[in-house]
This record gives sequence, structure tokens and C-alpha cells, in this order.
Amino acid sequence: MSVANYCEQGSGSGTDMATAVMRPFGSSNSIAHNLNKNLHPISTFDSSKLNSFYKTKRRFRFVCSAPQSVPNLVGSEEGVCLSIGSHVIPHPDKVEKGGEDAFLVSGYGGGVIAVADGVSGWAEKDVNPALFSRELMANASSLVEDEEVNYDPRNLIRKAHAATSSIGSATAVVAMLERNGILKIANVGDCGVRVLRKGQVVFSTSAQEHYFDCPYQLSSEPISQTFLDATVTTVELMEEDTVVMGSDGLFDNVFDRDIVFIINSCNSVAEAAKALANLAHNHSKDSSFDSPYSQEARAQGFDVPWWKKIMGMKLTGGKLDDITVIVGQVKSSLSS
Amino acid sequence: MSVANYCEQGSGSGTDMATAVMRPFGSSNSIAHNLNKNLHPISTFDSSKLNSFYKTKRRFRFVCSAPQSVPNLVGSEEGVCLSIGSHVIPHPDKVEKGGEDAFLVSGYGGGVIAVADGVSGWAEKDVNPALFSRELMANASSLVEDEEVNYDPRNLIRKAHAATSSIGSATAVVAMLERNGILKIANVGDCGVRVLRKGQVVFSTSAQEHYFDCPYQLSSEPISQTFLDATVTTVELMEEDTVVMGSDGLFDNVFDRDIVFIINSCNSVAEAAKALANLAHNHSKDSSFDSPYSQEARAQGFDVPWWKKIMGMKLTGGKLDDITVIVGQVKSSLSS
Repeated sequence: MSVANYCEQGSGSGTDMATAVMRPFGSSNSIAHNLNKNLHPISTFDSSKLNSFYKTKRRFRFVCSAPQSVPNLVGSEEGVCLSIGSHVIPHPDKVEKGGEDAFLVSGYGGGVIAVADGVSGWAEKDVNPALFSRELMANASSLVEDEEVNYDPRNLIRKAHAATSSIGSATAVVAMLERNGILKIANVGDCGVRVLRKGQVVFSTSAQEHYFDCPYQLSSEPISQTFLDATVTTVELMEEDTVVMGSDGLFDNVFDRDIVFIINSCNSVAEAAKALANLAHNHSKDSSFDSPYSQEARAQGFDVPWWKKIMGMKLTGGKLDDITVIVGQVKSSLSS
Repeated sequence: MSVANYCEQGSGSGTDMATAVMRPFGSSNSIAHNLNKNLHPISTFDSSKLNSFYKTKRRFRFVCSAPQSVPNLVGSEEGVCLSIGSHVIPHPDKVEKGGEDAFLVSGYGGGVIAVADGVSGWAEKDVNPALFSRELMANASSLVEDEEVNYDPRNLIRKAHAATSSIGSATAVVAMLERNGILKIANVGDCGVRVLRKGQVVFSTSAQEHYFDCPYQLSSEPISQTFLDATVTTVELMEEDTVVMGSDGLFDNVFDRDIVFIINSCNSVAEAAKALANLAHNHSKDSSFDSPYSQEARAQGFDVPWWKKIMGMKLTGGKLDDITVIVGQVKSSLSS
């Protein structure tokens, strides 16, 4: 099958932005501090430097505004690690501000990835919904190597949430790969993870929500979910497995079977992340597409009015949203 | 909402049978040996004895043909354990022979549950497809406490498969609950597990298949899947979580949202297991029901002929199959 529709080559351009949290190993405090003061523009990020970091066997993390695609290999010691690509497309109405998703990529251990999705309802209270998710990911970045976190994703959520002072709320998912191949995941809300092996999805997280379109969320308010509400799972990964993490903007607009098709079709993690984000973006704007979101809406009792139903119509369409995609492929550290 | 349609009271009767593997703690070898020689009829199984076993704080396992519903509490030490109910309805054409599913319930650790589904295609080769699945579960029962298994579900699959000499093949899922609440799962094929918490599914296994309706399977033949192909996951359970394990006869015929509804509606694990099996059975016979199976078939390109399509028709219907359901609720050993 042709992959042309999904997998255009190139790094992408335009005004799309996102907040990524990555930084050089060993400079946690200063760079976390910088995050809220001075986010560098996309163009300053040179992914080739990541590769050189890897080649010199140093773990790395950076703090910066994200490039469109961040291909890299994280991790350095014996065992497995993740080769990671990422891509973000903000909600069409939020392009200038970069959207309200934030994400984290770290090379600590076998690799740490996380996505937070700021809850947009805060805009009605004149609060920028991006502030909470960005600070949450910045704090998580500072704490990845924290002793009390102990390389436990639920602990990371607990400490990052406690350290976040911005007003707002966010869904969040954190995944930490151990060198022995065990991927540990903590998830609050409707961000998600898929693991693909030999052309099929072998693991999925499940979304948590109070009711349709109202996910569990970490918040500045005392009445919210906490790390205690996280679903904590592990999955044993194998070399060449692919991990796809995303905000609900991905999973509400792209079926698992299409994720499989794209992963099978693309030649790199960066290309796959971009292709997935583009497909989600295209579906999100397509009012006739019978998306995972519209199918779930109908299953929960939402649909077109009765007079449209008797004309054979039904509720369809994607969901306009910020879209964040992280694609990680499991590699042997020794062979890379 | 009324639960009358789903949750009839009573223990059930009739000719439906299944093979369950449970036995008194400490009598592994003799009872595993009996399994292939002398399967007792359903009516000999007295679930009240299970409760008395629990009350005396003894772990237990039995080998026998299954009753319609097996309510019990397994496990005895500090920490959490599973209160378990089970229910089996064979394929309508296989009622007399008890179907080709087999299952295991053990009180070792926090509780061990497993389902194997014999691959029916072996009947074309004059092989009884039930033999392999039954022996596999019998062997697993014998090996639950094996030192080399080390309370690891993939190891249990490995050793049980190696010990199975019957001709045939089967899908299999094994879940072992640790006292600290960690449920470890190994899955080969399209049996499955759901974990429900506070009225929603927070964890699902994913089916593995070569192509539509041809699942990964353990086999007597050298060209088959092995323990190495198992997807291995863990999920941290909380008290009052509900674990639903089943053969594909359950998950092909019942959507997750209906599993949630039934679990929320029923007053006991035995009642829930029976209600789920009954709903799956009813759906499996309903040619107009747009089941998970028919939806997946259409998604994979199977549908009615074009001339029916232009008349607005589509492929629908449940899937006639053996149906095995195990429902476990997480309880504190100390509080029970």
C-alpha cells in the first residue's frame, strides 16, 4: 500500500508549536527554572545534537519549545532504550499560543516520556489553560531523577503535581522504561499509550472520565484527582516494539488500526509521529469522518436530532483539539 | 435502572457444562491426574464448601467439571485476594460435550485465574478440540505453586504448555494476583481481561491474532506460538476493583460498556458472571445484533455483498461460541 498520504518527508514548518521539556543531563534545576521565563523558539532546536549526545553515551534532557519533530535516541547504558520522535499540532484556534498540550522526553533510565493536556474550560475563567500543563511537565522534568520518585511514574505525577503552582488542570500520562524492557505507566485522564508489536496493538491504556468528555484531571483545585487516581500498569516490551503516546487529540481522531498502518508504513519515529499527528489533524477537521470520538459519543447517547436520524443521518466528525504524538521504538543500547 | 434482564437470581441448571480446574491446596498431582479420567458432573460441585474452605483460612483448589456458577473467596493471608464467581455456557452445538473452553481458579497467593479456549478447527481432523485446552489448564493447576514458575504467569504458561501432550491448540490467558494488589497477566491469543474501577474499565488486554478470527495459540504442533509470544502486563488493583476474565465468546459478544453495566447492577460475583455469560449467549444468537465481532469483521473488510449494501444492509450478528466468564472482586483478606 502506498504511504504517500501519510508519510511526507521533511521536518515540517509553520506556526505550529508545543511545549517540550527536555534538557542536558545534570542541569535539572537551572533549566527547569528557565522554562517559565524563556522558552526558546522551535528553530533553535537542533536534533542532530541529540544524536551526538547519544553517541557519546551521555543521557540528555533539554528544556525548550518543541520543534515539529524531535527524533532522537534516549538512554545509554546496557539493555534497551527508546528511539523517540514527537510531533505536535495545536488546535486551529490556538496555533499562535502553541496550544495547551505539553510533553516531556528524557533519556533517564531507558527513557521517560509524558504528555499533559491542559483542560480548555479554564479559558472561560480567564486562565490560560496551557500554564498548568506546561508547569506540570517542567516540574516532572526536574524530578525525573529525584530519589523519592524512585523511577516510579506515579511518584513522578505526585511530586510534579505538588510542585505545580499555576491555576488550571490537566490530564497526564507518564511512561518510564526500565533497562530490562519493563515500561511502567501512570495515567490520569484521557491521554493514552499504545504498544505495537509485529503489526498489531498488544497493549492499550484505558481512559478515565467522570462522564463523556470530562476526563479525570490533576488540578490546582483541591477537589480534583491526584496520583492516587492514576491507573498504574506495566507492559514488558521487546526490541522493535513501538510505543505511541498521545493526548486525546490523537486517540479521539485516529483508530488503532490506522495507528498500526502508519507505524508499519513509516521509516522513522519522527516520520511516524508527524504522520500520526497529521492524520489526526485531518480527521479532526472532517465533519463526515466517523471518528473514535463520534462513535463514543453515539455509544453514550449523543446523536443528531430524531428528524435527522429518520433521514439516515448520524453524529459524525472528528474532534478539533491540540494533538501531541510521541513515538518511541525499543532499541538495544548496545546495538545502537 | 432495572437489573432484572441481566441478573436473575439462582444458581442455574441444565446441561451446560465446562471444565474448571480447582482443587484443595496441597493435592496437586493426584487431582491433576484425575482431570482427564473422570470429570464430575456439574451437580456434584457444592460452592458452599468453597466458602467453608475460605472461612477456615485455607487456600484451596479443586479439579472438577464446573458448576454453572462458582462463587468463592480465594486467598487467606494478609493483603488482598479475589472473591470469584464463574459461569460457562458452551456453544449450542457442543453442549453435550461441555464445550471446548477450560478454566482454572486457584487460591494460591492472592488468587490465580486462567481461561483456555480450544481451537475448534481441530474437529476437522477428528481431534476433540477440548482435550488440549483441558489438559493445559489441568497442567497449569498442577504447576501454580511450582518453584520454577515463581508465581509468574508467563512461566506458568511455559511449563503447562510443555507438559501438555494432547493434540490440539488453544488460546490462553493467566492472571495471578499478588497480595500487594499487583495483578500479573500473560495472554496468548484472544481470551481477555478487563479491570473495572468506580464504574469504568481502567484496564484491558489486547487480543493477538494472525488475521481476523485466527488468534495466536499454544499448540501441540511445533509451528505455533509459545510463552515467548505472550503479552505480559501488570495492573495495580485496588480494593473493590472487579476483574473480568473471559474467552472470546464473552468479548466478541459483549461491549465493555455492557460489562460495566452488568457489574454495576449485580450483587455478587457469581450473579455477575452468570449475567455476563447469559448476555453474551443471547447476543451470540442474535443475527441483528451489531456485536463487537461484527464491527471488527466490517473494520477488517468483511461485509454483506454489494447489492445488500446498497439496500442499506450491513454485516451484523453475534458469534456463536463457547462462553467462559470469571468475575473476581478484590477484597482485603483481613476484612473478609
